[in-house]
Amino acid sequence: MRALRYHGPGDLRLEHGIPEPCCSKTQVKVRPAFVGICGTDLHEYSTPTFIPDQKNTHPVTGESRPVIIGHEMAGTIVEIGADINNKSIKVGDRVSVRPTVCCFTCPSCEEGHYSCCATPGFLGLSGGGGGLSDYICVESDFVHKLPDTIGLDIGALVEPLATCWRAVVRSGIKNGDDVLVFGAGPIGLGVIQCCKAQGANNIIVAEVAVERRRLAKEFGATLVFNPLESDIVRETKKATHREQGADASFDCAGLEATLKAACLATRPRGVIVNVAIWEKPIEFNPNLLVFGERVFYSVLGYDKNDFEGVLNAIESGALKPGSMITRKISIDRVVEDGFRALIEEKDKHVKIQIDLLK
Amino acid sequence: MRALRYHGPGDLRLEHGIPEPCCSKTQVKVRPAFVGICGTDLHEYSTPTFIPDQKNTHPVTGESRPVIIGHEMAGTIVEIGADINNKSIKVGDRVSVRPTVCCFTCPSCEEGHYSCCATPGFLGLSGGGGGLSDYICVESDFVHKLPDTIGLDIGALVEPLATCWRAVVRSGIKNGDDVLVFGAGPIGLGVIQCCKAQGANNIIVAEVAVERRRLAKEFGATLVFNPLESDIVRETKKATHREQGADASFDCAGLEATLKAACLATRPRGVIVNVAIWEKPIEFNPNLLVFGERVFYSVLGYDKNDFEGVLNAIESGALKPGSMITRKISIDRVVEDGFRALIEEKDKHVKIQIDLLK
Ligand SMILES: [Zn+2]
Ligand SMILES: [Zn+2]
Repeated sequence: MRALRYHGPGDLRLEHGIPEPCCSKTQVKVRPAFVGICGTDLHEYSTPTFIPDQKNTHPVTGESRPVIIGHEMAGTIVEIGADINNKSIKVGDRVSVRPTVCCFTCPSCEEGHYSCCATPGFLGLSGGGGGLSDYICVESDFVHKLPDTIGLDIGALVEPLATCWRAVVRSGIKNGDDVLVFGAGPIGLGVIQCCKAQGANNIIVAEVAVERRRLAKEFGATLVFNPLESDIVRETKKATHREQGADASFDCAGLEATLKAACLATRPRGVIVNVAIWEKPIEFNPNLLVFGERVFYSVLGYDKNDFEGVLNAIESGALKPGSMITRKISIDRVVEDGFRALIEEKDKHVKIQIDLLK
Repeated sequence: MRALRYHGPGDLRLEHGIPEPCCSKTQVKVRPAFVGICGTDLHEYSTPTFIPDQKNTHPVTGESRPVIIGHEMAGTIVEIGADINNKSIKVGDRVSVRPTVCCFTCPSCEEGHYSCCATPGFLGLSGGGGGLSDYICVESDFVHKLPDTIGLDIGALVEPLATCWRAVVRSGIKNGDDVLVFGAGPIGLGVIQCCKAQGANNIIVAEVAVERRRLAKEFGATLVFNPLESDIVRETKKATHREQGADASFDCAGLEATLKAACLATRPRGVIVNVAIWEKPIEFNPNLLVFGERVFYSVLGYDKNDFEGVLNAIESGALKPGSMITRKISIDRVVEDGFRALIEEKDKHVKIQIDLLK
């Protein structure tokens, strides 16, 4: 079959004649239709972090480079494993694939908290196949059926939105609460939409790039600020109930400055939700959390419920993420029309998808 | 009346002829019987932080030095304000006094979260009277009746235990959970007891001082370690279910090293509860919380429910804090027999109380 494989930094190859994966008795075989490009793909392209090499094969998949890439995917089921008795899955079903790679045996996995698995990974990064291929086989628990009203391209947005959904659920915000979002990249824009879907009142956004501030408004932000020009703490307090600050702040940037501002702009007993991985240690005074008894939550990924939550919200119309897709390209132009556009015109693009049926 | 007043650093004076406070229509007048000395009292004695001076009167009490000290107190009601219709309070009742000073008007106060008041304070530090006097008047909501089985000396332990109680309630630990406690000073020892009362399984304690490690065991620790000699992260993992780490860690020290160890020794999706004020910023990598999605909670004080929780636990026998009282002294010997002992023999003493009826 055809597949786009990562051989090393800067070395992505569209290859033919790759062996088609075999569908085990507990798996389903999916033909991917749309696959989104994620910031992680870009990062791995230059500086591999997740993608295993020959010396460090992934403990669950046992694989190393070359690996097939693409982890934000939706497609059609073409085969069902012999042992699958679940009548709700059948050949021809359109599904979103949850690309979690996990051991199923560690305590976190046993509780269904796969994002805290002791040996975490993702299809499309860690081996086990990837979306940018003609076929991929996954355990049946990891496909989520798309309702008739949801297109396959929208289905490939469920994965990035699921992390955002989880962050907003974790925050515990209630209808009418005020939120503050740092960063309006793809994750920040997803958080904005999920906050809106959960009934947030003020959705205040701090973002440096002018084009991203425009997108933030388009997706539901009620107030947007350039934190280099405005005092985001003061503006947030001014905008919120009795000038107390946001009920929840979402740090989608993961910077010393954003964490500090998040603490200062959040009301007493409010929550800060971290939706970022940190590059390095920071200087931080925990009293910023302690005074006011603010809570610090982290969200690393998603569970099954988050995929269902996003799909239900799209079906009900509470989430309308379609315009996140800013370009569709073909599999032979991933670097040229995908990666380069996301680097060179990063503020204009939210999500570039590969259309595999093109 | 007689009162011990703070005039400035190192200048505590036992004075006579101080005007007796007047009981307003919504207050009760209490005659304190026992008053505990707290680390804050010691700290203020040398370096005033909370105690207002002439240039910065407290915004709620309007007072500055000299102020009457003593905030851990229990005593007997001697007068009831004319407007108090609460039939459950009467002259002669023995009560523990909740010494919270708050504005009653800010959003936190309106929700009953007095410890997050915008203008926080304590009786015995911020003006408004203090325990080390013949009489003190407080709003009727701030006295908690002692059951017949609880002595007045034990009643004066409720205040320091209430913070610990709140920390343990905040952690959300369930019966059978494993906990890790950093520091076995008065707060750490209180946390140990409250964890035991809530049904914790392993109570692991990290404490440098040998005498405090002995006390930790006496109050319910199941495993104690000197973190300078043992690898507390490894030992905690070894002792806990499937070597996952503690379900909850309580940082009663507030040091860069204890926060880092708390993160590393807590299981994925576990919680770290901060029960300390920080002296200065630290170097910290938030990924210690992010990977494993650990939660960071802070506890700054207590609310009404925590006083009730502690009193109920003492009455039921779940908390037996009596042996925390390591010495009782008279009001004319506070510096000599109280403060000095707590500094020079600090590992031997937990709580020194002033017996005002002596
Ligand atoms: Zn696992
Ligand atoms: Zn207040």
